[in-house]
Amino acid sequence: MTDVIKIVVAGPRGRMGREAVKLVEDTENFQLVAVIDHKHNGMKLADILETSKSQVMVYTDIEECLQNEQADVLIDLTTPETGYLHTKTALTYGVRPVVGTTGFSQEELIELKSLAEAKGLGCIIAPNFAIGAILMMKFSQMASKYFPDVEIMEMHHDQKLDAPSGTAVKTAEMIKENRPSHRQGHEDEKETIEGARGANYDGMRIHSVRLPGLVAHQQVLFGAEGQTLTLRHDSYNRASFMSGVKVSVETIMSLDSLVYGLEHILV
Amino acid sequence: MTDVIKIVVAGPRGRMGREAVKLVEDTENFQLVAVIDHKHNGMKLADILETSKSQVMVYTDIEECLQNEQADVLIDLTTPETGYLHTKTALTYGVRPVVGTTGFSQEELIELKSLAEAKGLGCIIAPNFAIGAILMMKFSQMASKYFPDVEIMEMHHDQKLDAPSGTAVKTAEMIKENRPSHRQGHEDEKETIEGARGANYDGMRIHSVRLPGLVAHQQVLFGAEGQTLTLRHDSYNRASFMSGVKVSVETIMSLDSLVYGLEHILV
Amino acid sequence: MTDVIKIVVAGPRGRMGREAVKLVEDTENFQLVAVIDHKHNGMKLADILETSKSQVMVYTDIEECLQNEQADVLIDLTTPETGYLHTKTALTYGVRPVVGTTGFSQEELIELKSLAEAKGLGCIIAPNFAIGAILMMKFSQMASKYFPDVEIMEMHHDQKLDAPSGTAVKTAEMIKENRPSHRQGHEDEKETIEGARGANYDGMRIHSVRLPGLVAHQQVLFGAEGQTLTLRHDSYNRASFMSGVKVSVETIMSLDSLVYGLEHILV
Amino acid sequence: MTDVIKIVVAGPRGRMGREAVKLVEDTENFQLVAVIDHKHNGMKLADILETSKSQVMVYTDIEECLQNEQADVLIDLTTPETGYLHTKTALTYGVRPVVGTTGFSQEELIELKSLAEAKGLGCIIAPNFAIGAILMMKFSQMASKYFPDVEIMEMHHDQKLDAPSGTAVKTAEMIKENRPSHRQGHEDEKETIEGARGANYDGMRIHSVRLPGLVAHQQVLFGAEGQTLTLRHDSYNRASFMSGVKVSVETIMSLDSLVYGLEHILV
Repeated sequence: MTDVIKIVVAGPRGRMGREAVKLVEDTENFQLVAVIDHKHNGMKLADILETSKSQVMVYTDIEECLQNEQADVLIDLTTPETGYLHTKTALTYGVRPVVGTTGFSQEELIELKSLAEAKGLGCIIAPNFAIGAILMMKFSQMASKYFPDVEIMEMHHDQKLDAPSGTAVKTAEMIKENRPSHRQGHEDEKETIEGARGANYDGMRIHSVRLPGLVAHQQVLFGAEGQTLTLRHDSYNRASFMSGVKVSVETIMSLDSLVYGLEHILV
Repeated sequence: MTDVIKIVVAGPRGRMGREAVKLVEDTENFQLVAVIDHKHNGMKLADILETSKSQVMVYTDIEECLQNEQADVLIDLTTPETGYLHTKTALTYGVRPVVGTTGFSQEELIELKSLAEAKGLGCIIAPNFAIGAILMMKFSQMASKYFPDVEIMEMHHDQKLDAPSGTAVKTAEMIKENRPSHRQGHEDEKETIEGARGANYDGMRIHSVRLPGLVAHQQVLFGAEGQTLTLRHDSYNRASFMSGVKVSVETIMSLDSLVYGLEHILV
Repeated sequence: MTDVIKIVVAGPRGRMGREAVKLVEDTENFQLVAVIDHKHNGMKLADILETSKSQVMVYTDIEECLQNEQADVLIDLTTPETGYLHTKTALTYGVRPVVGTTGFSQEELIELKSLAEAKGLGCIIAPNFAIGAILMMKFSQMASKYFPDVEIMEMHHDQKLDAPSGTAVKTAEMIKENRPSHRQGHEDEKETIEGARGANYDGMRIHSVRLPGLVAHQQVLFGAEGQTLTLRHDSYNRASFMSGVKVSVETIMSLDSLVYGLEHILV
Repeated sequence: MTDVIKIVVAGPRGRMGREAVKLVEDTENFQLVAVIDHKHNGMKLADILETSKSQVMVYTDIEECLQNEQADVLIDLTTPETGYLHTKTALTYGVRPVVGTTGFSQEELIELKSLAEAKGLGCIIAPNFAIGAILMMKFSQMASKYFPDVEIMEMHHDQKLDAPSGTAVKTAEMIKENRPSHRQGHEDEKETIEGARGANYDGMRIHSVRLPGLVAHQQVLFGAEGQTLTLRHDSYNRASFMSGVKVSVETIMSLDSLVYGLEHILV
């Protein structure tokens, strides 16, 4: 029999938080014990979140919450500022934090790492919870050892402002750790229309497609004599993040230090 | 019953010519009556081409060939210079030319067009015989009427020098005829690494991938609210051209003028 | 200058109807003049549909609606029973119907066809409004003339009960009209695990993939010597239908008879 | 500085052997010291293989070869019968065998394993040398831990007799080791045309596409809430195997026992 894991969700009314509440409610050995919201102290969750029928208590103050409720894990999907304070407080109270954010500074991460180690508690901080994306990146890194020629194509809706995407750059960084640096393509190749060969990152090329209808997709294409290997992730909606939150909660109970990035607990 | 079509192949020892000989030999109602080679006048085809057992005569001079042999169609896979002379001579002798080349000048095309019309003979000149590629371009043009947002990704082996490929540019030109000109992507989008968004052609984007292992591939991706449409052609080897030569030979018997580009006889 | 088209939407609170209201409100030369709902007679649209601010009148009776409001087009997204009555009434009142349904009987279609012709009015009845899907089917039909070897792969979420999908079967039917009937694959091929080669439809093969995460996707793959041609449609959400409704409304003003299926007005 | 590895190739005139000779000749720290052929004892390689200019000796007898020539590695690309004898003899002479075959019996493998261990020599026997295919299988196995819902689509030319392919079945076997056994798809799903849902292997589905033009391709598609992960390998020609032979030769020098299948030395 698996032990029940008692969970507090911070930020239950946000887009990610809503999904997290649903995940906890729908998972057999997960138990929602409270939520932390920046308003509505003392109300019940069902009163402030139309998609839930849960009668757990809403707290605005994390200390009050952790004093009153017995919790194993805090899932924090708030802002970087609030998330940092929540993480610190949770560790102090012996509660393991699972935090979705890209916004912590290097100093904050170092401080939280020390705290987690001092307490001997697991702490997972993840910029990306989509397991499929993490596996695509991880496998790309592994494959680049054997296939040093690689191009990345990422495809997003046309409301996205930056190109390449953060995931594409992160993938290229991870590949770079394993791939001997070299400029790909023919040494005499030339662009008859500027930009055709894409962005150059350490000699590999990244291409950014932006079209209405697309959601978030990335393809990593490796080529070698007589063959190609393609690793692709398609994200259709926010629910894709929840598999990563689930694995994090399941894994964190057996960790005793801080992990940054899901790639370090998968595979 | 279908009538037999009598065919002369010019350039039988070239990479394309070899395939053309094979095509004619393997097609039921096609009959090879002679070949034109720049050497070996008076020999038999089997003597100069290891992949054939045919005993048809080799000519170095097209006039001598067309005087001696009764032919319906000339398949010319030589050089632009020779091809031009062959085409003119064939039309003069009442033989319909199927010519694979990108090398004719505008003046030459106009002259051949007049000649074909004067003679009332079909004449097909094609830069590309891969029917799949032609269909991809044609369908892309048709789709762009309904899906004005489109990006082209072409993928080739890393020995290719120019980017984008000729087929990608030709596709973009054909789409342009049907698509209201506009710049795609978010108006405030920005490249954090230069070139990420690819080449800009009339507001649509073209991306060129170059990797070992790849042969010749192109994907045209259309996006609209809630959906995408993808048209893709993969060319694995030179045999892909032969389906286009075959359709050309079958079609040319019922034409009475010059056609430039297979897109005008397909669909 | 384009004339404004005056539109009534029937079924404005359904999943498709909601999108249709949004489409009409967001399109420059479309004007919403009323809605028909099975309840709420006499209220304003904004009162019954949270996503709209429109003050147009809600009618439960189509005759009353068409007597009071001057309309060019009825967009009907109700049920087959109601839709049939609405279509008939609209034609009687000189209003052109655009109807999304698969549920009309052959007799009903014949009757509506006569009525539309007698009135000299356009009438569009469409089982599928996703233009990308229609183009994929239409292009597949066209390509099969040159590429008689083809397999269809359709991919849907794992809550779908029937396999193959309706779109896959419709695609196969359309290809069949153009493709010489023959059994594909090697004549001695054998399945070491039953079902590997998919469903057999007139000699071509259809494969149905069912996985969580998928929405609605179909790929039609043509193969010939040395090349493949791939036509693929990905539908991510219901908004994909609206491009077809828009084209229908724009086209119907110049029609004078009934059209069944968008494939007859596209391309 | 990397030490030079001295190599004997057995079967140099076969399709794979030819590529192996080329590989050894083209790799900087590989040195071809002799070849073993079933004919032409005492000739030079260049005399029997038009694609090589090498003056190394041709032997018909492996013992004579290994007595006369100092070799580190034997690359054997002959038949299962000959390959078995060659492998045994090579190990006896202290030479490490890299063998491409699917044909050894369980007994033969056990015997060779004992021999390799007794000698403390590396020995690699591989049914498949295409690294991209091995990585696709290995990554599929790893991903199935997080994505238990998976379907395999393999695509080959239409001269292939068996469906599913050996690689598809091997992939399914490897996934099975990691994936909780369960039947995928909706429990009430039904095929309106038999075979649509493909072959059932432990509850996952395998689909086999056969079309002219295709070479050897496989796609493994994982689905989970809101996302899909795709792993795909495309093999275009035999050269794809050589990357695996190269890695095997480089790895074998540091092994001291028998390895069956490249998946155990990669990643």
